[in-house]
Amino acid sequence: MDSRTTIEAMLRADLRGRTAYGAPQLDVPVALNTNENSYPVPAVVVEAITRAVAAAASGLNRYPDREFTALREALAAYLLRSGTVVSAEQVWAGNGSNEVLLHLLQAFGGSGRTALGFTPAYSMHPIITTTTGTTWVDGLRGVAGGGAFDLDVASAVEQVREHRPDVVFLCSPNNPTGTALDLDTVVAVHDAAPNTLVVVDEAYAEFARPGTPSALTLLQGRPRLVVTRTMSKAFALAGGRLGYLAADPALVDALRLVRMPYHLATQTQAVALAALDHADLMLETVGAIKAERDRLVAELTAMGLDPVPSDANFVLFGGLEDSHTTWSALLERGVLVRDVGIAHYLRVTAGTPQETTAFLQAMSDLAPQHRTASTPMTLSTGARP
Amino acid sequence: MDSRTTIEAMLRADLRGRTAYGAPQLDVPVALNTNENSYPVPAVVVEAITRAVAAAASGLNRYPDREFTALREALAAYLLRSGTVVSAEQVWAGNGSNEVLLHLLQAFGGSGRTALGFTPAYSMHPIITTTTGTTWVDGLRGVAGGGAFDLDVASAVEQVREHRPDVVFLCSPNNPTGTALDLDTVVAVHDAAPNTLVVVDEAYAEFARPGTPSALTLLQGRPRLVVTRTMSKAFALAGGRLGYLAADPALVDALRLVRMPYHLATQTQAVALAALDHADLMLETVGAIKAERDRLVAELTAMGLDPVPSDANFVLFGGLEDSHTTWSALLERGVLVRDVGIAHYLRVTAGTPQETTAFLQAMSDLAPQHRTASTPMTLSTGARP
Repeated sequence: MDSRTTIEAMLRADLRGRTAYGAPQLDVPVALNTNENSYPVPAVVVEAITRAVAAAASGLNRYPDREFTALREALAAYLLRSGTVVSAEQVWAGNGSNEVLLHLLQAFGGSGRTALGFTPAYSMHPIITTTTGTTWVDGLRGVAGGGAFDLDVASAVEQVREHRPDVVFLCSPNNPTGTALDLDTVVAVHDAAPNTLVVVDEAYAEFARPGTPSALTLLQGRPRLVVTRTMSKAFALAGGRLGYLAADPALVDALRLVRMPYHLATQTQAVALAALDHADLMLETVGAIKAERDRLVAELTAMGLDPVPSDANFVLFGGLEDSHTTWSALLERGVLVRDVGIAHYLRVTAGTPQETTAFLQAMSDLAPQHRTASTPMTLSTGARP
Repeated sequence: MDSRTTIEAMLRADLRGRTAYGAPQLDVPVALNTNENSYPVPAVVVEAITRAVAAAASGLNRYPDREFTALREALAAYLLRSGTVVSAEQVWAGNGSNEVLLHLLQAFGGSGRTALGFTPAYSMHPIITTTTGTTWVDGLRGVAGGGAFDLDVASAVEQVREHRPDVVFLCSPNNPTGTALDLDTVVAVHDAAPNTLVVVDEAYAEFARPGTPSALTLLQGRPRLVVTRTMSKAFALAGGRLGYLAADPALVDALRLVRMPYHLATQTQAVALAALDHADLMLETVGAIKAERDRLVAELTAMGLDPVPSDANFVLFGGLEDSHTTWSALLERGVLVRDVGIAHYLRVTAGTPQETTAFLQAMSDLAPQHRTASTPMTLSTGARP
């Protein structure tokens, strides 16, 4: 028996035959496939990060602060800037919001339990769910009213009542479709399930259009509600891997039961703290990115394509005859976008003006041959990053 | 209903009423409780780490290398120094060996599966096991021959045959008892269970007494064998959180199915690489620590106490009337050691000569009142760090 057969025989049955998650790591001139912030970390912050790590490095022989107290305080202070009062006791963090979501599923999911999400949404939600042995229920976004990918409130409430899941995922702005949820939907889903944990994934919140409120404003008095955030997107710190959440302090305590002790390295705490210390500077590019996003929507529309309204740093656009053919043709022109598995649609990140221009020029060349008159939809799972 | 009750009602049933893992984070003059390396990172390596993070910081807007290729190559090169040929494809890493162990349990454990360990051993083994919904089987170290805490081969083989676990943990040198396993035991346990994953936790391997071989030398031809290591101990990088393992490439592939994408931050890869680049310097203190460990064994014996032979950077010593009383009395004298839950025993880390002296002086003051003539043993779960 060869070793691969031996390993396959020992593997958890539901993992057999699966392939690992991963956006292609291709080296291309214009990478607009993982919703990164295209702007490098500003020099002032590079210096602050360097100073912070230099100061911490000689003490790396010691374990990090297991409670990452200073970081939790800095994250709470950051959320206060957006007008929501959240205490450090309400904040939890991990190596990317993926780990924060993992902690939630480890504590509140597991064998015999279910998590419901409304597809297409962040493709890691079902993966994290099943990794923890929790059963994934693939909910539908509904079709009544609104745009093609809007979450229909009545339908969402009905699905929650029907499946009585232990965990519900909402995603606002939704990835890969880009549109934010209104808070009435969050409240309706929350109230429909009296024993369900409601997770609102707000990875892209800072890019939302004016007047889009955060589910953070709903936390008070709702211990079953969790809002997850990340420093990977608006904060331009995808490489720093710092995701976090805000919730009731009792919920945060529950996560201490499942996290690996000392899960946040000293250098990760130092990097995130230095970046948070320069939040204004780190967020300075958000306005420019939103302008490029709006330009993508406008110009793709002008090409006869069908972009979805976006509150994020990316645009999902439809109207393509065959999304994979267009994806390959763009790649040939040095532009990498994301095929999120929705027929006739592709997702493109709003990058720098130069990157956006490169994409739009390539797409403009292709559009006459690649677009289709009718846009039939086949929903499937989307993806971040 | 208050929020704590609401959360408790949603929590996974087997987690209810549990308390979170954690050594006390007390600020004391002499901290010898978590088996850290007491020596700060050398100035040359601090500079290298600083340079590496400075060079990477402006690119933190991009996701890290999901495959941490350079780091896997550097870890393979490090293992080659100790004489074992391991390719980068055989290496996996995580945020501390806890995360590496978590990945193993996520892939090969789960609901309806069991993991067996021989208590007392590393206290995180059962915690990680149950976190993943795997059932923990608390094996016994056996009593026939050898020292009080030696793992009896025949008994270990019998327990493996009886329980047919999906995963078996061995720990060498064992924590909290300190003694390394001989390889015959590893092979016997491996051969006793034809479908079982055998995990040898070698967190403290670099401290082993001369002539102690590593289970790395057994990997060839044994795809069910895994050896885990860490940079937290000998490598003096507990704050850097870099654990790793060596195993068959097919086993490493299986872990890609359960790891969160991009789990190793750019700065963590940079810090670990810089440290590995200066492996000689980072390991320079190992000899001094081993000398202090041997001194602990000798002087505790001279006090009429009962230290266990150690291949690690700590010593478990018995002969105490009441371990908690002694723990508190040491803390009053500014020395923090570890009460690992074994009656009549405490665990002390081998620190700098000054720290070791401070502990030995305090213990020498206490010994006449605190030691007991007979040493009955009650085994319970031990702990690292």
